[in-house]
Amino acid sequence: MPSTRSLALLSLLVSVSLVLSKPAEAQSAAPPSLTELYKDTAGALIGAALTDDEGWEKLTYLTTVIGNRLSGSPQLEQAIQWAGQSMRREGFDKVVLQPVKVPHWVRGKESAQVVVPHPRALPMLGLGNSVGTPPEGITAPIVVVKSFDELKALDDKAVQGKIVVYAVPWEGYGKTVQYRGRGASEAARKGAVAALVRSATGNSLATPHTGAMRYAQDAPKIPAAAITPEDADWMRRMAEAGRPVTVKLTMEAKMLPDADSHNVIAEIAGSEFPDEVVVMGGHFDSWDVGQGAHDDGASCIAAWQALALIKKLGLHPKRTLRVVLWTNEENGLRGGRAYRKALGDMVKNHVAAIEMDGGCERPVGFGASLGAGRGGSEEGSTTPSPAAERMLSRLRQIGALLEGIGAGSITSGGGGADIGPLMREGVPGLALRTVMEHYFDWHHTDADTLDKVDPLNLRRATAMLAVMGFVLADMPGRLGDQ
Amino acid sequence: MPSTRSLALLSLLVSVSLVLSKPAEAQSAAPPSLTELYKDTAGALIGAALTDDEGWEKLTYLTTVIGNRLSGSPQLEQAIQWAGQSMRREGFDKVVLQPVKVPHWVRGKESAQVVVPHPRALPMLGLGNSVGTPPEGITAPIVVVKSFDELKALDDKAVQGKIVVYAVPWEGYGKTVQYRGRGASEAARKGAVAALVRSATGNSLATPHTGAMRYAQDAPKIPAAAITPEDADWMRRMAEAGRPVTVKLTMEAKMLPDADSHNVIAEIAGSEFPDEVVVMGGHFDSWDVGQGAHDDGASCIAAWQALALIKKLGLHPKRTLRVVLWTNEENGLRGGRAYRKALGDMVKNHVAAIEMDGGCERPVGFGASLGAGRGGSEEGSTTPSPAAERMLSRLRQIGALLEGIGAGSITSGGGGADIGPLMREGVPGLALRTVMEHYFDWHHTDADTLDKVDPLNLRRATAMLAVMGFVLADMPGRLGDQ
Repeated sequence: MPSTRSLALLSLLVSVSLVLSKPAEAQSAAPPSLTELYKDTAGALIGAALTDDEGWEKLTYLTTVIGNRLSGSPQLEQAIQWAGQSMRREGFDKVVLQPVKVPHWVRGKESAQVVVPHPRALPMLGLGNSVGTPPEGITAPIVVVKSFDELKALDDKAVQGKIVVYAVPWEGYGKTVQYRGRGASEAARKGAVAALVRSATGNSLATPHTGAMRYAQDAPKIPAAAITPEDADWMRRMAEAGRPVTVKLTMEAKMLPDADSHNVIAEIAGSEFPDEVVVMGGHFDSWDVGQGAHDDGASCIAAWQALALIKKLGLHPKRTLRVVLWTNEENGLRGGRAYRKALGDMVKNHVAAIEMDGGCERPVGFGASLGAGRGGSEEGSTTPSPAAERMLSRLRQIGALLEGIGAGSITSGGGGADIGPLMREGVPGLALRTVMEHYFDWHHTDADTLDKVDPLNLRRATAMLAVMGFVLADMPGRLGDQ
Repeated sequence: MPSTRSLALLSLLVSVSLVLSKPAEAQSAAPPSLTELYKDTAGALIGAALTDDEGWEKLTYLTTVIGNRLSGSPQLEQAIQWAGQSMRREGFDKVVLQPVKVPHWVRGKESAQVVVPHPRALPMLGLGNSVGTPPEGITAPIVVVKSFDELKALDDKAVQGKIVVYAVPWEGYGKTVQYRGRGASEAARKGAVAALVRSATGNSLATPHTGAMRYAQDAPKIPAAAITPEDADWMRRMAEAGRPVTVKLTMEAKMLPDADSHNVIAEIAGSEFPDEVVVMGGHFDSWDVGQGAHDDGASCIAAWQALALIKKLGLHPKRTLRVVLWTNEENGLRGGRAYRKALGDMVKNHVAAIEMDGGCERPVGFGASLGAGRGGSEEGSTTPSPAAERMLSRLRQIGALLEGIGAGSITSGGGGADIGPLMREGVPGLALRTVMEHYFDWHHTDADTLDKVDPLNLRRATAMLAVMGFVLADMPGRLGDQ
């Protein structure tokens, strides 16, 4: 609809020119709040985002034509080159593909079957970083545990030569995911030959969830795979009934030499303080299932499109506003580390870092971690220091600009894995927060697909990143100033 | 907990003897309503059902130790023998395994992969009755249609040698399921080599749904499989973007000679009119995925346990109350037909038939089809005749007894596939109705498992069948009387 869009653009340009002439006349007795100062700019950005179709077109291309994007896969490199070329065409002040060496794990063919009592296929997904089985597979009786304590209490003889099944309860992602992470090594220490882990989700339709696992140095490496909550529950009940179950697991999974990858970086240079940087983005890699739509394609597109709309509106923030699509968040965090390393001492000029990595459900606001040396935990929350309180107050003034789209909440605690290395250097870290109703239903599964993303929420997230990113980059004084 | 249970049984027996002495003194001016007449009996039955554990234990055994139960499988025969033996132990007046020859379709190994553009596994389930592929599989480009009309409008050349993908919208089970049923033959007529059908569900977590398909006489038999809504949507978007997709489909599926099976029949003989029969039940077979928990294991157990509780309470209905666990509902309806055929003319003595085959979510009441010659549609609803209105009024008096468990609604329209042959002879047919919130999420999938059944709802359904079955079998006059 080019004519409608041209009209919308025209009306936006008019309002932008009104905006640009406003700050001067707003100077009166008390310094205006950020809410007052950026009301019209925010209005222009929100209006542009809520009428934008290009973000959805980009996300459709990324998820449909390119697909999922595991580190080392041709799809991830295809996505990176496509984003770089598109960004150059869009005419940002700088577009850089920053080289990063990434782990290169490949799944290969894999399957699992119940052999005893009744042969049947077990839906499964090998865990990322897992070794494979011998070509003929591993066939062994299972031993079911509901916790690490239960495993430890078992006699080694009860575990030796068996496949340990973690039929653990769902106690939220943070708690349940530990069995995915270190379940294989804990089982291997007791002599197990493989580990099957209940998928980390509270809602399943026979859906296995993959994700990263890691091997301890002091334990044999045994193959590890996720099974569905349904099958974990079935195995638990069979064990409780004293009924033996034998499973055959076949996985070709292996780790190849590190592969070449890149962080995709695009920016609008600061008009007054080009060395001061606000960075925002998500991770461009995904697991090798589904389409990486919520995790984390939509976030990458929202950040990219936010920058594109700021550029289209002809806005020039005082500081540099940079979008980074980090590589290798899922199984290595190499992108986030490489970005921080390349900054050297310039990390102190990073005014704020915003990561969106909780899916693109209905957004509600931002969470912020504002203490120096804070890690990248998405869930951490502490009592804010006076300095953090000052920052929170400024962020709330910006948040107020987003109340009209239900996304104005500013809470303490937030960040992201990719911006963790920056936050550990004292850079204030923000996470875009959503309602998180279904994210972990889709997370790391074949169901993380475009049909699960509501275009309205992509537009809302785009609006939020545009407003928060622009104001942080443009506001009088840095976010962290006294 | 034997001691608690013995106490409960004792107190129930006391209330039952009170009940049995009541009808005489209740005779006054106007004939009492069924609600008044059976209030105490219903109370005893509801109390027994809501404190019952045996039903849950049976369902656990059926779904966990035996598992799913496709016609011709060893598991179905195991379930039939187990039920027959258990029922004999429980001491019903008659337990019969009625022989039925059933179709014997086997799935064998099966898989699907995207070959172009990026190789990946496609979650899938072959459709019941489908033929297999050659051992090397079928590898072909896909052609995507969103309806039969769209398929028909295509030039035959656009379909020949291709795999037709039905990326159809979800318009409710009744509408969408037609593509599962006749999609393969419609595609074969245009020269397709295989058909992939969007699973018939409105809610998916990358979950394929199997179910029966059938071949037209005049079309080549090509293999047919269900894919996930996510992948159907992806293929539609790829087609819209003009991007070719090639799929490899490998299925060992085949039809074997008919197998031996049985309807499981247990009854309490009528104390006054043993030839008059109220029959209730579900189908004991299931698809060969998941555990056949909602479809239709829980229903079978609820009907069986209802009869067991009536017996435990020492209640003797005037007419015969019979439970039938029909075989082969899913892919042949041979059980329902064999049951009707064996009755011969005695079908006229069937007072009512109750089927539960909509899962064991929270039950709300019964739907009833009360016109002679009505088919077995679960969804049909018509304006009732005066005779039907009389029956509805009697059923509502019984329904009132179930209002205390939120299950007293009596609506027009209902029945079931297995009781269809009886209903076509004029037998009033009832369906136990539930909220139906998630049934089609689980239906015919690996997610139809015990963990999806709330034990409280199994108890409620048991109470409903006990009360409805007992009152219909015991009430003064037959349900259909003038």
